[in-house]
Amino acid sequence: MDFLRSVSSKMAFDILKKFNVKLSTEYINVENAYGRVIAHDIISKEDVPYFSRSLVDGYAIKAKDTYGANETNPRFVNVKGEIKIGEIKDLKIDDGECIRVSTGSMIPEGADGVVMQEYVREMLDAIEITKAIHEGENICFRGDDIRKGEKVIEEGKRLNFFDMGVLASLGISKVEVYKKPLISIISTGDEIIDIDEIPGPGQIRDINRYVLKGLFEREGFIVTSLGIARDNLKEIKEKITSAGDSDIILISGGSSKGERDYMVDAIDSLGGEIIFHGINIKPGKPTIFARLWNKPVFGLPGHPASCIIVAIRFVLPFLKKMEGEASWRYKGLYTGILTTNVPSALGIEEYVEITAEKEHDKILVTPLFSKSSVISTFTRAEGYIVVPEDKEGLEKNEMVEVFSF
Amino acid sequence: MDFLRSVSSKMAFDILKKFNVKLSTEYINVENAYGRVIAHDIISKEDVPYFSRSLVDGYAIKAKDTYGANETNPRFVNVKGEIKIGEIKDLKIDDGECIRVSTGSMIPEGADGVVMQEYVREMLDAIEITKAIHEGENICFRGDDIRKGEKVIEEGKRLNFFDMGVLASLGISKVEVYKKPLISIISTGDEIIDIDEIPGPGQIRDINRYVLKGLFEREGFIVTSLGIARDNLKEIKEKITSAGDSDIILISGGSSKGERDYMVDAIDSLGGEIIFHGINIKPGKPTIFARLWNKPVFGLPGHPASCIIVAIRFVLPFLKKMEGEASWRYKGLYTGILTTNVPSALGIEEYVEITAEKEHDKILVTPLFSKSSVISTFTRAEGYIVVPEDKEGLEKNEMVEVFSF
Repeated sequence: MDFLRSVSSKMAFDILKKFNVKLSTEYINVENAYGRVIAHDIISKEDVPYFSRSLVDGYAIKAKDTYGANETNPRFVNVKGEIKIGEIKDLKIDDGECIRVSTGSMIPEGADGVVMQEYVREMLDAIEITKAIHEGENICFRGDDIRKGEKVIEEGKRLNFFDMGVLASLGISKVEVYKKPLISIISTGDEIIDIDEIPGPGQIRDINRYVLKGLFEREGFIVTSLGIARDNLKEIKEKITSAGDSDIILISGGSSKGERDYMVDAIDSLGGEIIFHGINIKPGKPTIFARLWNKPVFGLPGHPASCIIVAIRFVLPFLKKMEGEASWRYKGLYTGILTTNVPSALGIEEYVEITAEKEHDKILVTPLFSKSSVISTFTRAEGYIVVPEDKEGLEKNEMVEVFSF
Repeated sequence: MDFLRSVSSKMAFDILKKFNVKLSTEYINVENAYGRVIAHDIISKEDVPYFSRSLVDGYAIKAKDTYGANETNPRFVNVKGEIKIGEIKDLKIDDGECIRVSTGSMIPEGADGVVMQEYVREMLDAIEITKAIHEGENICFRGDDIRKGEKVIEEGKRLNFFDMGVLASLGISKVEVYKKPLISIISTGDEIIDIDEIPGPGQIRDINRYVLKGLFEREGFIVTSLGIARDNLKEIKEKITSAGDSDIILISGGSSKGERDYMVDAIDSLGGEIIFHGINIKPGKPTIFARLWNKPVFGLPGHPASCIIVAIRFVLPFLKKMEGEASWRYKGLYTGILTTNVPSALGIEEYVEITAEKEHDKILVTPLFSKSSVISTFTRAEGYIVVPEDKEGLEKNEMVEVFSF
């Protein structure tokens, strides 16, 4: 049974990376573009700003007319007029002249600096300048922000609010972005009950559905929960079939090598192909990845702690790749010093949730050892660390990278 | 004119902290609770798990019956039956007996450990055990995760996906949370045009509306943009009046001390009270905070870079406080080493956007000096650093804390 093969963390990641399921695109308004992945490069068609603007309230001037000016030795220039904000005037200055401007006013021809209000004494038709400026001071020149022809945003970038500002400044009101993946979640297991029910002995409420929904909705994905399937082939096949409209199917529980493993049979009998079964990680080993109706299907472990870690380490990057994000990577939060040894088996990549505390310039990282079914430990965790598969644990005082959930 | 007073960064923060505008609450389903702030403590009414469960596939046993077992010296015990997942059986074991269990099965009375499948050789009605276990091994005991009566979530916590899992495990399907603030955004300025328009000389597109919308929608707040008001009292008053249904009003532009400062007049003539005008920060000095119809009103600087930084440092924490979040704090991302001097004026808190790069175990932090009207610089920034008001700049090689946008 070749499909039962388990893979290393790196192999799993490589397989997921190569699985080709980029979503189609849609056009949306820039004001709704936060967190969306852009599907084309943005090349500026104009200079931003489109005209040279004053950055302060004051007087536009030739900088050389201020050289040597100070409180006791002010320089004297004539005021030729005023340009208000938003006003277009054909004014021009020569040596010994200046024009009053406000923050945002266009700079008149001839001026190469603006003296701030604070360093000016006003007279009838002239001013005394008490501080020298250098060329270009207090001016934002045409094209200083963005130059015509410049590539300002690259295809595959997840747009942040600064990008939205850049798009607005370029007058781009609609962008093409990748669609958000539609995710179906199925929970399986004879012992699993809905959260509204009272557990009898041997029963346990469906936790994974809620954790997965929260995690993926944080990322803006669209999650539908299809409820609980009992541990029998018919029910599992029915639930999977009802998820046929989604872009990706996640099934939690039922993927360990126990007797009741109907997930593999269900995918198989629906015409799917199991790509791997088992990853050499802890927690999270009994993870399945399959292709069904040309869609990706993940079988996630039933234990909440295992389910979460697999969702974060493997499903989340996969979803971001589906969404077209070019440069996704694990977010290392910071580096800290381990306060205790962390034992681990060779050949297994292990994830350990931690707390951290600051001591002077150092960050002390302490593992929160817990059983894999315990969800409450995670609410106290600040993040997790990774023990690589080629190491037999980590040692006290070792530097470790902390990852965020 | 007392209301024209400017305040220090700390004073501004204290004033905002004391401004009392907690929103009302609503009941929502736990599956939609990601990122919401809970309005009451959660005390567990039961033990989780509700029964002792096996963490592995194997045999439930008395640990002492395995002591001394190894490959060459296996221990021999009788198999008394099986408890499947979700099954309730009145089985009980005595010395020299065991019961077959799966991952998640309830543990029978008398057993205090589970031997994993891997360390067992199966015979007809018995097994040979080849590895000893300690008491409690491979069992998640009743109450191991959460104990009855334990306070598991505190009022004022912003719920993450682990909290959703904890609520699910306790059978809590609805929670009371604070409502999300409704934010109205007004842009002002004669030089400001809509992004669909072509700027003439002296004109500039409305950037702040989009950056603010992206920033606040990232946090799940509800943002309405009311468009652009020209620089005249009548239009600004009309726009403010049309924002009367929102919980907070943000007005960008028009708050500098220039001649066209109609914002203060508008708030004043509508019966509002200016609480401060100006914060000793850079960028962002011309910031107004006012109370109008018992609602908070912010006047934000027109320069995008200034507007963003004030929104992040002052408006965002204020909104989170409105939303009832108890423990909001600025998120320091990490600490790094400054690669260059950063000059700054005494008495002003300064914010400088930076890039960072890793070198061995160190993080090198380099300021991105830019003019305050330049939005494109921000898209390259990894975060920002703060120069405290009591320091005349920061020095090369100094350790600095980097904050995220």
